[in-house]
Amino acid sequence: MKAKLILSGGMDSTTLLYLLKSRGVEVEALTFDYGQRHRKEIAVAAAIAKVASVPHRVVDISTLNPFLGNSSQTNPAIPVPEGRYDEESMKATVVPNRNMIFLAVAVAAAISDKADAVYYGAHAGDHTIYPDCRPAFVGAMRRALKLCDWHKVRLCAPFLKKTKGDIAALGYILKVPFHLTWTCYKGMEKHCGKCGACNERKGAFAKAGLLDPVPYEEAQ
Amino acid sequence: MKAKLILSGGMDSTTLLYLLKSRGVEVEALTFDYGQRHRKEIAVAAAIAKVASVPHRVVDISTLNPFLGNSSQTNPAIPVPEGRYDEESMKATVVPNRNMIFLAVAVAAAISDKADAVYYGAHAGDHTIYPDCRPAFVGAMRRALKLCDWHKVRLCAPFLKKTKGDIAALGYILKVPFHLTWTCYKGMEKHCGKCGACNERKGAFAKAGLLDPVPYEEAQ
Repeated sequence: MKAKLILSGGMDSTTLLYLLKSRGVEVEALTFDYGQRHRKEIAVAAAIAKVASVPHRVVDISTLNPFLGNSSQTNPAIPVPEGRYDEESMKATVVPNRNMIFLAVAVAAAISDKADAVYYGAHAGDHTIYPDCRPAFVGAMRRALKLCDWHKVRLCAPFLKKTKGDIAALGYILKVPFHLTWTCYKGMEKHCGKCGACNERKGAFAKAGLLDPVPYEEAQ
Repeated sequence: MKAKLILSGGMDSTTLLYLLKSRGVEVEALTFDYGQRHRKEIAVAAAIAKVASVPHRVVDISTLNPFLGNSSQTNPAIPVPEGRYDEESMKATVVPNRNMIFLAVAVAAAISDKADAVYYGAHAGDHTIYPDCRPAFVGAMRRALKLCDWHKVRLCAPFLKKTKGDIAALGYILKVPFHLTWTCYKGMEKHCGKCGACNERKGAFAKAGLLDPVPYEEAQ
């Protein structure tokens, strides 16, 4: 099977990359440059793809930034909220329709290369604040994908019902280089340890009973 | 009502612009630069928006060109086929997943600006060769749009069951500046009169009993 994977350089999409590799899927990783604050993830994704020996392309959609304006991740004027993912304040991190844009482009690439599927790492922990990670959204996109071209591309989100703790545990089995992954929304030198993304990551490793190999700004 | 309109500068989306204006919709027109061969349509769309006194933005996604490779409209190595729209050869003009990408970005813009709807000019004549103009595709995207963000955006394609002849007739009533519109896939100085798009346009005006005001390369 031939597939495109949306690789952000975070622990979920990196684990998904290693899962696909373990199953012998011929995968190309795509990372989106949308002018994100945590643009460090682009270099991280490239490094991970290199270590995993899979082809990787950066999709430059940074010109779309003015159309993705009301998020802390695309507008430097909006601060990154600190706290837990399930808090209302965390909605400031939602980038309008980001996943539909990513999926639409990944599907175009899949159609062009006659690939069979597009994978993305949406998981159960995302659902509270990210509307475009919900199973119902994935279902609707799946139907749209069956109709958008004469060449059919399947949309696969195998972590949709998994928690981030499950993903950490699976990644450990798959020997995912978690030390290379980047999760923090702030994009500083080290992970901040205080934003929603950092808190969720720390919780996931704790739940899986594993040590998180990345250093944090704050004392742990 | 506040809406975004995908304006290609062709007769369908231009007629839709004038229809929305006639109904008092507060509309912003978006035109996509995807490195298309017939890029003349970008300047044409800007001129039409100016004449219609509506705000207009060009969405530069030309960096996506390598992901939209197998079409005569994005790959200069593939010639534009001549003939009728319903011929198999015309599938060379299909740009992989183009409409899903356009809609996804227009919806992001609509969410960012708290607009109510996104309009696009898909019509009944497109269905034979363009999978992403079919009513079933529009229905699937409509469902996905209800789920992709907390702010709901409606997808409206009021010409979905209209022929291009119907659109020409409607445009005449609405005083659409058809002389400014651009349809031809080849993007030369004048309309070629031989490609599928030109043939469909000529047929539409003939069916509506109207004179097409644009000059053609070939003798009419």
